Amino acid sequence: MDAITAHRSTALLTDRYELTMLQAALRSGAAHRRSVFEVFTRRLPDGRRYGVVAGTGRVLDAVADFRFTTPQLDWLADRNVVDDATLRHLADYRFTGDIHGYPEGEVYFPGSPLLTVEGTFAEAVILETVILSILNHDSAIAAAASRMTAAAGDRPVIEMGARRAHEGAAVAAARAAYIAGFSATSDLEAGFAFGIPTTGTAAHAFTLLHDTERDAFTAQIDSMGRGTTLLVDTYDLAEAVRTAVEVAGPTLGAVRIDSGDLTLLAHRVRRQLDDLGAHKTKIIVTSDLDEYAIAALAAAPVDGYGVGTSLVTGSGHPTCAMVYKLVARESVPGGPLVPVAKRSAGGKSSVGGRKWAARRPDADGIAEAEVVGTGPVPAELERHLLHVPLVRAGEIVGRESLDAARERHLRARASLPLSATQLSKGEPVIVTETARPAAD
Amino acid sequence: MDAITAHRSTALLTDRYELTMLQAALRSGAAHRRSVFEVFTRRLPDGRRYGVVAGTGRVLDAVADFRFTTPQLDWLADRNVVDDATLRHLADYRFTGDIHGYPEGEVYFPGSPLLTVEGTFAEAVILETVILSILNHDSAIAAAASRMTAAAGDRPVIEMGARRAHEGAAVAAARAAYIAGFSATSDLEAGFAFGIPTTGTAAHAFTLLHDTERDAFTAQIDSMGRGTTLLVDTYDLAEAVRTAVEVAGPTLGAVRIDSGDLTLLAHRVRRQLDDLGAHKTKIIVTSDLDEYAIAALAAAPVDGYGVGTSLVTGSGHPTCAMVYKLVARESVPGGPLVPVAKRSAGGKSSVGGRKWAARRPDADGIAEAEVVGTGPVPAELERHLLHVPLVRAGEIVGRESLDAARERHLRARASLPLSATQLSKGEPVIVTETARPAAD
Repeated sequence: MDAITAHRSTALLTDRYELTMLQAALRSGAAHRRSVFEVFTRRLPDGRRYGVVAGTGRVLDAVADFRFTTPQLDWLADRNVVDDATLRHLADYRFTGDIHGYPEGEVYFPGSPLLTVEGTFAEAVILETVILSILNHDSAIAAAASRMTAAAGDRPVIEMGARRAHEGAAVAAARAAYIAGFSATSDLEAGFAFGIPTTGTAAHAFTLLHDTERDAFTAQIDSMGRGTTLLVDTYDLAEAVRTAVEVAGPTLGAVRIDSGDLTLLAHRVRRQLDDLGAHKTKIIVTSDLDEYAIAALAAAPVDGYGVGTSLVTGSGHPTCAMVYKLVARESVPGGPLVPVAKRSAGGKSSVGGRKWAARRPDADGIAEAEVVGTGPVPAELERHLLHVPLVRAGEIVGRESLDAARERHLRARASLPLSATQLSKGEPVIVTETARPAAD
Repeated sequence: MDAITAHRSTALLTDRYELTMLQAALRSGAAHRRSVFEVFTRRLPDGRRYGVVAGTGRVLDAVADFRFTTPQLDWLADRNVVDDATLRHLADYRFTGDIHGYPEGEVYFPGSPLLTVEGTFAEAVILETVILSILNHDSAIAAAASRMTAAAGDRPVIEMGARRAHEGAAVAAARAAYIAGFSATSDLEAGFAFGIPTTGTAAHAFTLLHDTERDAFTAQIDSMGRGTTLLVDTYDLAEAVRTAVEVAGPTLGAVRIDSGDLTLLAHRVRRQLDDLGAHKTKIIVTSDLDEYAIAALAAAPVDGYGVGTSLVTGSGHPTCAMVYKLVARESVPGGPLVPVAKRSAGGKSSVGGRKWAARRPDADGIAEAEVVGTGPVPAELERHLLHVPLVRAGEIVGRESLDAARERHLRARASLPLSATQLSKGEPVIVTETARPAAD
């Protein structure tokens, strides 16, 4: 029994059509054309002012683990998913191409070329599903998390949404939230797998288990010490706070309120704690919070927030609209890359060509435009390019610590115009400009 | 490298406070009190008329795999999550209690006691997080999926949302969708892990890879035969349909339209296919569909639907509000179970006591009420009880095939009043009644 995040094959986290396209392209010969795929999004979720890149580190692991095992190959054969020639190709599969992209924690906008995957069509096309799964999920969570940490200011925000998300998604959500500034998670697997600080003390069940609330509080203090957080809203709040301070003394670490009108109750509990001499006892609130509720509590005497459902569901936007599109490919082996793009009248069009991206600052160093182009990079933008190398000739070169991504996010968010962190609906906080393509 | 769904420990898919509660309860002695936890929800998502139970089979696997491995125990020790006595307890952990619940595919309503977990507090409390993660996610997907299959009537609906969901959640979503009547999935891992039929042929990238659309169609037909589905909206739709029938002949399996005004285009393409003699060539549509779009296409000449984003995000409700609450426990070893309940003024109250549930039919056999009680079961409801045994003394007894759950769902949905499948917002389609508790 390995941990859920231990090494495993990611190869079947893939839409069937990737493999049938591969089969047909192997047969037509086009499979070996050098190709460039781009991850981008045409729009941010309605009213959001910036996006947050998250999942890049997990994408790198998924690419490294993209190998077909014998049981997988046997299953593909057994179900006639692809023919023998394709199975032989898959048995030897490893990605040998290049990946560049926005580093994790960076912000993004409509049209930002978030990831560029370059290799043969055969090796690049089949990475589509798992790359999009990871980036679409993790970036959606990080975007919501970033709004919450911005609203919370200096107060810590704790992720505790595991029970409201798929058990694996919950672990990834804790990771994405940490990148966007959350201070800890309730999810032990997220601590085990990614080193994120974990936290938690007790639920209502612990109080209900004991014959009296006093018994429960005494048991908790005996076990965890006076610095623990007591949950005070199982029966009567005021009585619970009184009992808590009686049992723990005035050095009680914190009380947690998990229901009711939190602004009102926080003021009332603060007053009561102060009257009882527990001036340093903190107040943690945790009931159905989102970024709006956090902002509304800014003036309340609250010391920390726990966020569950709205974090793991992306606060109304549980996924991003990122797509993975072929933007250029060879026509003849070794020939130049030809830009390609869908162009039907029905929408979903794309822009052909391998792209660079830069974020242009104004005179004060505040971002004023996302500039995307396909030709040579204008000299004045060279210092502001956004892509970093992630995979070179199949070798992963872009691994970094979560703390590096976390710091990058705080820096990137701080470099945006102030209106970026307004919670009301609005347009993307900077425009995306297309640099006039040079002749190439 | 195992597949993502291969055996693994689920023990750390757990909120930290479960383990700290365990530690404190081991110390106070209350950990050994026989306890009953109940999974229920206070409400359905806004406007939904019924819920759908999904994930039960995955819960059983998660309970079986809930064992702490040595690296996990070492990590818990290293981070001082719990003390040595608790670590020793965890090292030997296996669930030895009983679980009853609604079988998978069944429908449910506010207050339905979906799952009852009975054992010592120590063994039952720590299952909370992973049980809720699974049921909240899978049931949210199944509820959306059920609305979509109801709207689609006899036309097949294909799940293709993997790229818009966490890669592990996507596999669970395909499973939940299948239970709620979807016919197939794009996700190979869902086929590999759960035996769900998989489907898929080609994306726009395949057309763009080739020098002409004709080359691409020819390559696909060569590889997959004339029965394949050609994607016809990369460049000009009418030209693509003409080329498709020229290349494949009138026995072409299907064309897929993935953008634009699908009602209009379906009519136009049907006419064109008929004019070209391809009367049996089917039309599959796949662009941002949800249950409303599916219903709107009822009169269009469409033969199948592919649904992505809105399926994997629960069509606006990506999670359920299921909770896991202690409802009864011993006060003295071997003594009677005492009902317990949170009762603070702040909300989130629960109803104490171990519950039964039955769905009472009217004279025509149509459901008219969900009846929930804590005392003896009235004789006339005995035939209509909803709980089935899932785990007995730690042994899993409730495993069944996905097809059994799928058939159950179609039966359960069909037994509801007709307004259940109205898509407009409304109240739960039957009321939940509380049976007057008998003296006990």
